[in-house]
Amino acid sequence: MTNFNDLPAHVWPRNAARQEDGVVTIAGVPLPEIAEEYGTPVFVVDEDDFRSRCRDMANAFGGAQNVHYASKAFLTRRIARWVDEEGLALDVASENELRLALSAEFPAERITVHGNNKSAAFLRLCVAEGVGHVVLDSPQELELLDMIARSQDKVQEVFIRVKPGVEAHTHEFIATSHEDQKFGFSLASGSAWEAAKAAHNAENLDLGGLHCHVGSQVFDAEGFKLAAERVLDLYARIHNELGVDLPYLDLGGGYGIAYTVDEEPLDVAAVAKELLAAVNEFAAELGIAAPTVVVEPGRAIAGPTAVTVYEVGTIKDVHVDDDTTRRYISVDGGMSDNIRPALYEAEYDTRVVSGFTDGEKLQARLVGSHCESGDIIVKDTQYPADVSTGDLIGVAATGAYCYAMSSNYNAFGKPAVVSVRTGRVTPMLRRQTIEDLLALESAQP
Amino acid sequence: MTNFNDLPAHVWPRNAARQEDGVVTIAGVPLPEIAEEYGTPVFVVDEDDFRSRCRDMANAFGGAQNVHYASKAFLTRRIARWVDEEGLALDVASENELRLALSAEFPAERITVHGNNKSAAFLRLCVAEGVGHVVLDSPQELELLDMIARSQDKVQEVFIRVKPGVEAHTHEFIATSHEDQKFGFSLASGSAWEAAKAAHNAENLDLGGLHCHVGSQVFDAEGFKLAAERVLDLYARIHNELGVDLPYLDLGGGYGIAYTVDEEPLDVAAVAKELLAAVNEFAAELGIAAPTVVVEPGRAIAGPTAVTVYEVGTIKDVHVDDDTTRRYISVDGGMSDNIRPALYEAEYDTRVVSGFTDGEKLQARLVGSHCESGDIIVKDTQYPADVSTGDLIGVAATGAYCYAMSSNYNAFGKPAVVSVRTGRVTPMLRRQTIEDLLALESAQP
Repeated sequence: MTNFNDLPAHVWPRNAARQEDGVVTIAGVPLPEIAEEYGTPVFVVDEDDFRSRCRDMANAFGGAQNVHYASKAFLTRRIARWVDEEGLALDVASENELRLALSAEFPAERITVHGNNKSAAFLRLCVAEGVGHVVLDSPQELELLDMIARSQDKVQEVFIRVKPGVEAHTHEFIATSHEDQKFGFSLASGSAWEAAKAAHNAENLDLGGLHCHVGSQVFDAEGFKLAAERVLDLYARIHNELGVDLPYLDLGGGYGIAYTVDEEPLDVAAVAKELLAAVNEFAAELGIAAPTVVVEPGRAIAGPTAVTVYEVGTIKDVHVDDDTTRRYISVDGGMSDNIRPALYEAEYDTRVVSGFTDGEKLQARLVGSHCESGDIIVKDTQYPADVSTGDLIGVAATGAYCYAMSSNYNAFGKPAVVSVRTGRVTPMLRRQTIEDLLALESAQP
Repeated sequence: MTNFNDLPAHVWPRNAARQEDGVVTIAGVPLPEIAEEYGTPVFVVDEDDFRSRCRDMANAFGGAQNVHYASKAFLTRRIARWVDEEGLALDVASENELRLALSAEFPAERITVHGNNKSAAFLRLCVAEGVGHVVLDSPQELELLDMIARSQDKVQEVFIRVKPGVEAHTHEFIATSHEDQKFGFSLASGSAWEAAKAAHNAENLDLGGLHCHVGSQVFDAEGFKLAAERVLDLYARIHNELGVDLPYLDLGGGYGIAYTVDEEPLDVAAVAKELLAAVNEFAAELGIAAPTVVVEPGRAIAGPTAVTVYEVGTIKDVHVDDDTTRRYISVDGGMSDNIRPALYEAEYDTRVVSGFTDGEKLQARLVGSHCESGDIIVKDTQYPADVSTGDLIGVAATGAYCYAMSSNYNAFGKPAVVSVRTGRVTPMLRRQTIEDLLALESAQP
């Protein structure tokens, strides 16, 4: 067990530090000051950390244009601007994500559009705005997009999402599964080839590459390499039978981050090097031009850059059995601002950020304020005995899939979000109030 | 397998029917008309059904005042008004739920306040507004509320939440567990007795009863009865040692509903009769006055009264293996408007509501539009082969914990909600737009 006053550097934002008085700062800004001004819970995003992870990815994958930030992890106008300024491309997966990006003046030609069920209206918007790529997910969509592009007298560049039959998680992967899912065309059944041929032959579509996604929280290159090898077989067939070399190979996301002190994040530079070398090697063996590899990290960029700051409320020692007492520490948020523990049994690293703690370590559970016994942030942990009501607790690595999936359960407003950089705080999203919720109510009695 | 054109009466709203042309109506309103006017997805709430379930509960439990509608299942101003007009009481579990209820002019004296982590500000509001009962959940809160009531020169009536050590689900219950949770005071360890004594002795608190909650989706009386028996032992001790008969026994919620055709909802009248008889019997055996039993249904009132209407988009036949094909039917919502399948592996009954279907039954999966392969509404079902893009699908029993837990994942706006009664549609909540989401963005660059 590490010292509770430490901030594990591989889990916390790059610019997080504990001052001599015990207060935790991010980018030089004391978290208690942010809590005081913006209230709790509040998400604090380390801008330089975010940008540095964009650059790490860009360096690893041969250029910022090859890295597509996945909006679904967490998107605001300011984040879209950071992504744009760093030269990355952007993935969107819904009409509203596209509208959000465009409202931040993100260049449409650097946007790739995902989704298993894009409406005609969404596809018309994509073509009209001139998005870089639409990732086709079904024969029906392929025909519809071709027709829409024709009606706008345009040629739309597309990718085709294929299922390589590889499912990767952590350090393991399954090489023969994952066909039975909603996304993509099957390589194994031949439907991916049929789709590639159809896209190649469609007058108003231009096939730019194939896309696949192997999983989430992946920590090494093996699963990606196997998927690339399988997908490149189809590139070879396309080369041989259709006479074209597709310029891009989109290998999706899945780059794992460390949520707890025991985890190690995926080594982006090492995995990228191994993966790119493998793609070049496979292409050479197949006698085709190696496509440019494109990747789509969301969590690996946004995840580690943010911390959720909560205030401690009720503390209660619960008699579990004659030998065990567990201290329940309640904070002023929970499953409305972070559904991941309930949904995915996700674990988190949490620390007191308002000062040093040094009491005896007690069995503890960090819980939220929702009216549901499953509203738990950290199920099994140890907390120093001197943690008390009014202290601030920071939960690290909440930058991805927390705010993005947040709800208004129990009529909780969504938290405020701020970004910090070189000692300065800038509000990013204001806290949602009861008035915001009531604004949806019909005036009719 | 039932006929796909049926609407199982024990799952669908009481006023749902299929017309001669195959279109499904609720309270006489064709669902396609609602979809046309309000867009999809849309929640349609059957007002008379909702009110009738309030009355069924009131009749079963000896009076509307003994039934507390649990806001967390689904609360809007109009629903608060229905609950008020039917004479029920209301449970809230957060400051915003209380504010929402008060904004609908729900009488504060009929409101009971729950929560494991009520802030001082929330408790001050409770006392100032004169809520009926505050359910105390920790020694810390007991002291704080007493102090707050004193500072406002009031006496606040309270319940104490106790853990009876019973955990009930479906037709089974566990008689010796559930101590290790965030809510309540333990009966077994004596802390519930200590709290009762402290509340009794507190100058500005008036102890009205004890509260317990045994679980969710319970289908018979056994678990409730065992909990009541254990809690009543403490009533007897309070009677004997403190000389008072507590007027109320709050047995919480958990009354199960049918989500699928194979399930039978809990028989409210029968379970209530058995439970009330048992409480009277236990009290007589203990030589104490039988307290009035109070219950807190949320799901059992709201759940069956609403249907989510989606429009079918992409349809794709997925090659699962050489012998199996699965039809993936995508609709224009998903885990943002109904997290329950992903969160609890919840199952639902779904039907085409825009007309008859009669094709061959195919293995099918109903999926949403989110960028996540786990975004599934119904995992294993059979759908007629003639279901096609543009059809409307209704998902029954979505009145509880769907809108209430909805998110903006993938920047989806929350759906519209309407209520229907005797052929008339009234908007309840308007659809959330991208502008609503952008309204939270800070103006600062």
